Amino acid sequence: MKALVYLGPGEKSWTDKPTPAIDKPTDAVVRLLHTTICGTDLHILEGDVPEVTPGRVLGHEGVGVVETVGAAVRNFKPGDHVLISCVTSCGSCTNCRRQMYSHCADGGWILGHTIDGTQAEYVRIPHADNSLYPIPAGADEQALVMLSDILPTGFEIGVLAGKVKPGDSVAIVGAGPVGMAALLTAQFYSPAMLIVVDADRNRLEVAQGFGATHLIDINSENAVQRIFELTDGVGVDVAIEAVGIPASFDTCQAVIAPGGNIANVGVHGKSVELHLEKLWIQNINLSTGLVNTNTTPMLLKTVQAGKIDASQLITHRFALADILAAYEVFGNAAREKAIKVILTQ
Amino acid sequence: MKALVYLGPGEKSWTDKPTPAIDKPTDAVVRLLHTTICGTDLHILEGDVPEVTPGRVLGHEGVGVVETVGAAVRNFKPGDHVLISCVTSCGSCTNCRRQMYSHCADGGWILGHTIDGTQAEYVRIPHADNSLYPIPAGADEQALVMLSDILPTGFEIGVLAGKVKPGDSVAIVGAGPVGMAALLTAQFYSPAMLIVVDADRNRLEVAQGFGATHLIDINSENAVQRIFELTDGVGVDVAIEAVGIPASFDTCQAVIAPGGNIANVGVHGKSVELHLEKLWIQNINLSTGLVNTNTTPMLLKTVQAGKIDASQLITHRFALADILAAYEVFGNAAREKAIKVILTQ
Amino acid sequence: MKALVYLGPGEKSWTDKPTPAIDKPTDAVVRLLHTTICGTDLHILEGDVPEVTPGRVLGHEGVGVVETVGAAVRNFKPGDHVLISCVTSCGSCTNCRRQMYSHCADGGWILGHTIDGTQAEYVRIPHADNSLYPIPAGADEQALVMLSDILPTGFEIGVLAGKVKPGDSVAIVGAGPVGMAALLTAQFYSPAMLIVVDADRNRLEVAQGFGATHLIDINSENAVQRIFELTDGVGVDVAIEAVGIPASFDTCQAVIAPGGNIANVGVHGKSVELHLEKLWIQNINLSTGLVNTNTTPMLLKTVQAGKIDASQLITHRFALADILAAYEVFGNAAREKAIKVILTQ
Amino acid sequence: MKALVYLGPGEKSWTDKPTPAIDKPTDAVVRLLHTTICGTDLHILEGDVPEVTPGRVLGHEGVGVVETVGAAVRNFKPGDHVLISCVTSCGSCTNCRRQMYSHCADGGWILGHTIDGTQAEYVRIPHADNSLYPIPAGADEQALVMLSDILPTGFEIGVLAGKVKPGDSVAIVGAGPVGMAALLTAQFYSPAMLIVVDADRNRLEVAQGFGATHLIDINSENAVQRIFELTDGVGVDVAIEAVGIPASFDTCQAVIAPGGNIANVGVHGKSVELHLEKLWIQNINLSTGLVNTNTTPMLLKTVQAGKIDASQLITHRFALADILAAYEVFGNAAREKAIKVILTQ
Repeated sequence: MKALVYLGPGEKSWTDKPTPAIDKPTDAVVRLLHTTICGTDLHILEGDVPEVTPGRVLGHEGVGVVETVGAAVRNFKPGDHVLISCVTSCGSCTNCRRQMYSHCADGGWILGHTIDGTQAEYVRIPHADNSLYPIPAGADEQALVMLSDILPTGFEIGVLAGKVKPGDSVAIVGAGPVGMAALLTAQFYSPAMLIVVDADRNRLEVAQGFGATHLIDINSENAVQRIFELTDGVGVDVAIEAVGIPASFDTCQAVIAPGGNIANVGVHGKSVELHLEKLWIQNINLSTGLVNTNTTPMLLKTVQAGKIDASQLITHRFALADILAAYEVFGNAAREKAIKVILTQ
Repeated sequence: MKALVYLGPGEKSWTDKPTPAIDKPTDAVVRLLHTTICGTDLHILEGDVPEVTPGRVLGHEGVGVVETVGAAVRNFKPGDHVLISCVTSCGSCTNCRRQMYSHCADGGWILGHTIDGTQAEYVRIPHADNSLYPIPAGADEQALVMLSDILPTGFEIGVLAGKVKPGDSVAIVGAGPVGMAALLTAQFYSPAMLIVVDADRNRLEVAQGFGATHLIDINSENAVQRIFELTDGVGVDVAIEAVGIPASFDTCQAVIAPGGNIANVGVHGKSVELHLEKLWIQNINLSTGLVNTNTTPMLLKTVQAGKIDASQLITHRFALADILAAYEVFGNAAREKAIKVILTQ
Repeated sequence: MKALVYLGPGEKSWTDKPTPAIDKPTDAVVRLLHTTICGTDLHILEGDVPEVTPGRVLGHEGVGVVETVGAAVRNFKPGDHVLISCVTSCGSCTNCRRQMYSHCADGGWILGHTIDGTQAEYVRIPHADNSLYPIPAGADEQALVMLSDILPTGFEIGVLAGKVKPGDSVAIVGAGPVGMAALLTAQFYSPAMLIVVDADRNRLEVAQGFGATHLIDINSENAVQRIFELTDGVGVDVAIEAVGIPASFDTCQAVIAPGGNIANVGVHGKSVELHLEKLWIQNINLSTGLVNTNTTPMLLKTVQAGKIDASQLITHRFALADILAAYEVFGNAAREKAIKVILTQ
Repeated sequence: MKALVYLGPGEKSWTDKPTPAIDKPTDAVVRLLHTTICGTDLHILEGDVPEVTPGRVLGHEGVGVVETVGAAVRNFKPGDHVLISCVTSCGSCTNCRRQMYSHCADGGWILGHTIDGTQAEYVRIPHADNSLYPIPAGADEQALVMLSDILPTGFEIGVLAGKVKPGDSVAIVGAGPVGMAALLTAQFYSPAMLIVVDADRNRLEVAQGFGATHLIDINSENAVQRIFELTDGVGVDVAIEAVGIPASFDTCQAVIAPGGNIANVGVHGKSVELHLEKLWIQNINLSTGLVNTNTTPMLLKTVQAGKIDASQLITHRFALADILAAYEVFGNAAREKAIKVILTQ
């Protein structure tokens, strides 16, 4: 088969790889229909994720058709259309049994990381019964690719961990794909104020279309000062960090109201300075996390009920064979006004 | 009346002050029976709490007898024995209505801070109906002084915010009064492992008597390494920071297991380095806070039912008039093997 | 002043009563701007609520202007526009301190019940600081009357107690004012399916306009059978009883899915048969309650943010002096297609 | 092998059955070391559980040694000592993924019910990875049989569903094995008052030894009246129904305080009268359920840490081959002063 293979820092190729086969009785092999590229894939290509070794097929998102299943797979059969979760879950280890699939003893984020991933014609999915989801008939299958990673990430690690409630004021710092996912799913809980902070004017405009009530362009405004103005000097109930750098974390810790929640969604490459000398007395909460995807069934129901339009996140579409061109676009997201790209086979 | 008055950094005096009177209809004036000294009082005396101005009567803990009440006080009458909460609560502002009394718009920690406090023969208590608690007949009134501040602080900000559950592994970093309070109240939830970390051999031995299952003396052991050994390399479910310095916070963030909770109880004077580059993926939670004392009624019930022996925390007793000697002992807690001192009038 | 006075079963009069004055320092006297009639008032007039004695001014909902305040009232002053809560809260008793204001030791539902109420030119409000809410400038004050009782009742006792979640299936049995309030506020949590069951065709149509996804007219359909069809034989995640008779409760217990929640909002006059022989194994939850109104601040924020249009519930408007005509309309709600009537002074 | 086989109402035999073998790749076959008899087994023998057909091996509790495992079993291997859960869980259906294993689409309570059970020399366990638990070295394996069913049942359906908190007043109505399990595990949360109600003097005395603070013998006292005396007329925070008949449910609904929780653990054979005409206004909660056993890992940790002595529940011990004698004793529990019997092979 053809696959997008990592060849070392800065090097990738759309090339031939052996088609995967069932290895364990709990495996399934899935033929990809649609996949996408994640910001994490760009980090891997920069050499920032040393666990990814040359030869690895990238990608951890996608929708496909089950090709073959192992003898112990009960929930799926060849021909089933399935959503692939970015997190693999054995379903029986200590962490899976408390729904923390992100830290599964035999899974977690492994696709396109420690085993071959979804940017390929076929992919082997371990623990298929717990790591694939059936796609309802008539669903928009391209849109559902957004449920592999970014929607559950924004929802679980941003909205749920941040405990967004009706009437709340929420600041989302960072309007990339995951910030947008938090923006869309925060609206499940009817906050009064959804402030989006970014430096990219296009993304801010998109955020407005997605339901942001206030936009802050940090090129022209001081985000902290503006948020205090908007909240009568109180700060926000929830601050969602969706970038992964000290500056955006600093904004979150500066604007959080007493009793509020900072939900860190961003992937950080270095430590931050936490102002405990101010925050110790503020009764705040700070959460971190890799997505568990335990809300995927809930999200599927909200998408099916039209509570959220996941397709809005897709800005560009390519044939899977043109994945190198798609990387070019996604790697220049600001210039190309890209949020998520879809690759279809 | 006589009172312990702050006179500026390093200066205090047991001296005459006008006896307080009712100022607002919601006030009560209480004659102190027992009071105590808090580590915070030592910080104030060092000049570290600039809101405290010379002339201020210190102290925010105590048990007393109601002397007079304002016209709007309904729950108390002269002669009632009462527990004084370290946090004053108006009961009707936005924060009080969500039980975050620590951030009351007309209260919070004000006693011995922005108004005169309890290290005196009498004290005026604003919002008496919400800031005093009736003492059950036959109670050990000296022991109940521990419910003014340290027991609710250890319980709410350590144990409850840390979400201690049956079977959990818990590390308490710091065996001062508040760490001890967390140690005692953590046992309400039956954790399997209660590790106490400190540098004071006496305090560690006391902790063992209070229910610690494992002791780590940081003079002779590497706390992080030892905690990983004790937890089969997983780390602890809950880490309670009860010191307030970067080193103890670092221990907490180093030993927290994926999915665990760091509860910061310590009062910090400077920022800490938060290792988000490791923790972003660990699905952890970090909480901070000043005590709300909303659990005081619950704690009173557990003390009355013998579930906790608050008197264990008292190591020294003085007459109120000897408060300068008591400060001398409490200010040299390690040498004197002091946890809490009681001053009785 | 003029007031609507209960004179015994079946008897009422719009007549003169002494204008109320401050009695305790925590009281306020409020001049009514808008009030309304509740189904409970009809029950009182039928003699079903024996605690209400002849001579009592009815009414427990309204918006007004503060006329005078007692010496201990801090949050309000004459001239302030205020929302009157149907539940009076002292703010300091055991139940108030756990936010169960419905069971306040010196309050709860007393207006128009055990003290004079709001269907009058003036009303005395005890514990004003905890029982009134400031009205934001520019608000639709008629619409806010819906926040005195029915919106918090439908929200707290229906939606919150029923734990409505994104993607859930919800059945609301009864499309009267409180059922409608549950229907509107359930949407704060983005359920996938909102089934409304009633016998009144007009109300079902109104429910559709308010966001119901499915309507069941029990004159022409078997509600239980239809709900199982709609839910693929599983039943609903949440069933909200909003009538108060055995038949509607039976529908709820018949259609609840394993793991689901039955939230009883209806006021029942007799016992029901609970099928524990079926339900013991179903892991369900059943909740009951009088509204606490502790969510009133949250609801005010959602109304101000346009998340909910409370004015939709108002079908008829009268001058306060025409309250007898308003009772005539509201007492024949089905014929008059009435949901809530507003009386304005 | 030998097994205890149900032969129709009133008929059972210790007789030969084919030794079970692996049927699906997720199965394990376990050789029993210890098993026990449950009250449910007595109901089956009376013919009250029609799903159980003649020829069925009874029993759903036990500890054993893994004999063989299917190709897809990853967590266990031959020779491992394991705890058998009374509830079988596939780990991947909708209900398992929300930890409601009791309603597993391919499991739930099936052992000794719809497939052959544990009162035998060997048993086949479907979905072994999710339905067995590893036994820590050095554990008291007889005591751990109490974790197959009664301890998680009392804990999850009584204590957790009842939301027992520090300082609470709790009434447990029924001092049979499951009531005793609730009594033991309620103490994980440090309630102030643990009232046990029963008609059997011996069981009440045992309850006292297990930590009950108050005993009510309904032969000589009116339980409702006595509970109101003990609680200053307020009623209890939590009432746990552990019998399964209308009379004991009535006691629970009569004594519950406003805001309290009734946790129904009893298996009911007929409906009850629920006094909604009183309870609608009481803000109470009523829960039901079959055990999920999702707390088994937590309970194992508390047993290992010595927080609970499960062996106290064992009153009689037999060889497995003497199971008919054990049934004779357990079937006359009051006369024999039996709580749980252990059968050892």
